[in-house]
Amino acid sequence: MAPGPGFNDESDACCESESTVYVHNPHLDGMTEDILYHFNLGTSSHNLPAMFGDVKFVCVGGSPWRMKSFIEYIARELGLEDPKAEYPNICAGTDRYAMYKIGPVLSVSHGMGIPSIAIMLHELVKLLHHAHCTDVTIVRIGTSGGLGLKPGTVVVTKQSVDATFLPRFEQIILGKTVVRSTDLDEGLAEELVQCSKELSQFETVIGNTMCTLDFYEGQARLDGAFCSYTEQDKQEYLTKAYESGVRNIEMESSVFAAMCKLSGLKAAVVCVTLLDRQKGDQLTSSKEVLHSYQQRPQILVSHLIKKRLQASSSKKS
Amino acid sequence: MAPGPGFNDESDACCESESTVYVHNPHLDGMTEDILYHFNLGTSSHNLPAMFGDVKFVCVGGSPWRMKSFIEYIARELGLEDPKAEYPNICAGTDRYAMYKIGPVLSVSHGMGIPSIAIMLHELVKLLHHAHCTDVTIVRIGTSGGLGLKPGTVVVTKQSVDATFLPRFEQIILGKTVVRSTDLDEGLAEELVQCSKELSQFETVIGNTMCTLDFYEGQARLDGAFCSYTEQDKQEYLTKAYESGVRNIEMESSVFAAMCKLSGLKAAVVCVTLLDRQKGDQLTSSKEVLHSYQQRPQILVSHLIKKRLQASSSKKS
Repeated sequence: MAPGPGFNDESDACCESESTVYVHNPHLDGMTEDILYHFNLGTSSHNLPAMFGDVKFVCVGGSPWRMKSFIEYIARELGLEDPKAEYPNICAGTDRYAMYKIGPVLSVSHGMGIPSIAIMLHELVKLLHHAHCTDVTIVRIGTSGGLGLKPGTVVVTKQSVDATFLPRFEQIILGKTVVRSTDLDEGLAEELVQCSKELSQFETVIGNTMCTLDFYEGQARLDGAFCSYTEQDKQEYLTKAYESGVRNIEMESSVFAAMCKLSGLKAAVVCVTLLDRQKGDQLTSSKEVLHSYQQRPQILVSHLIKKRLQASSSKKS
Repeated sequence: MAPGPGFNDESDACCESESTVYVHNPHLDGMTEDILYHFNLGTSSHNLPAMFGDVKFVCVGGSPWRMKSFIEYIARELGLEDPKAEYPNICAGTDRYAMYKIGPVLSVSHGMGIPSIAIMLHELVKLLHHAHCTDVTIVRIGTSGGLGLKPGTVVVTKQSVDATFLPRFEQIILGKTVVRSTDLDEGLAEELVQCSKELSQFETVIGNTMCTLDFYEGQARLDGAFCSYTEQDKQEYLTKAYESGVRNIEMESSVFAAMCKLSGLKAAVVCVTLLDRQKGDQLTSSKEVLHSYQQRPQILVSHLIKKRLQASSSKKS
């Protein structure tokens, strides 16, 4: 099943002075109402342009708690903090996802795995479209297992690859497989690495990210409920992954890259490595250490947002 | 990559008088500690046999709120309710999953999609194994889109099928595809239909359940951010699904069936249909109606658990 005309054509997204967020669905125009069910939002029940029209940065991550702590952190960093204010969960009527907003920054949780983030992204792309947002940058800030890296290293994804190390995402539509590109924005990735150099707080590398459908057998772990391979099989597989350019492994980047590309969203994946998978499978570091690692992608992305906003305000003045 | 010896052999699980919960992983024996990371539990930090050794029924569902409301409901139904007691979330230190327990019943959330439920099931199977649980019955109580059924109808899954209507689950291990069976327990499915007849509150049917990796394009919806097919394409696909025996569509049943079969857990999938997909894609029913539908699988499974416990106590006395 081939995608419709213009479906893979990014030119419309990058040649306008203001990039809009693209849906590719002729059926949406004929709908009197669009219910974003898993957000508990809708075009009839909510004024989406008023609520979200000023969004320029979207940060997404698996854990709702982490996405709440990110909005608190970025609010402080941008000087938008109101000490008396709570940050209400915009999706409070559902427990599928959590969503927070401060100024031009939206923070959304996506759960674990490709299907979970894909539902969120379908509804997020429609939300940004309905809200008439322009020039939106989106970053996934997550956790991952590393390959050949000191735990705590941050990986900015060059390409998201599948379990055979190929840069592609297979989407099944009407029972047939459609292959989509998993390219991410190169300029944005370089900008993020530059931010890490300026911060000089932790190491950040660019590398490929392997995206799997399973955390245990799918990532060659030896500690799942089932394991039919040896330690040597595991090491050989991870070595092959490393040799192909893979520096970390997680579970959402491929569909994130594919869907953001189709929507004309400039996208990056920034994941901290919680352990070196060639040295182990279990997360044995203390809660404090793991927590401090998880803040690194937040610190990096906050720096990028601050720089961008400063550049934009000095341009205006 | 073929699974190891005995990997698909269920005979060891069904020929003992007390069925234990099987892990198939020789590496686990050599570990001094097993950290169930996404539950925030572990063999060193928690006395798993004391906490979980009496578990006989596990109910799992996507939403943490629903799994909490289930434990409150089943506590009332079993007369185990303590009006002053809160039901603490056993996984309180993490927001990945929520877990509640009352007497022999464990209630666990699993998020949305195959990868999310698979992580939970790996850790749940290990938990039940470490706790030396025996004769465990597990039921997924979920929501789904229906085919040719009045919304609110409950479907007990006969076979979980993929997007080409085949009863199989493809697991990728070390980059190679392994196909696993998605058979569920026939006797348990029939027992659940019998429970529905006794209750006589809503319609329950047995049928095949299609399990997809995507909610929008993967289920032929016309209301995602992307859609490259026509209403007619959609209807033809859903008609083919119906003709093959599919009565509802959801996103977790295939890996659930495959992993429970490998572990020797007697398993069933009980999902209510929230809409008829041949008539629409969006969930336009009121919150109250949708909420009452979502209680139906809970009511059905509670009835089963009560019957089983009554039968077991009259056998003892």
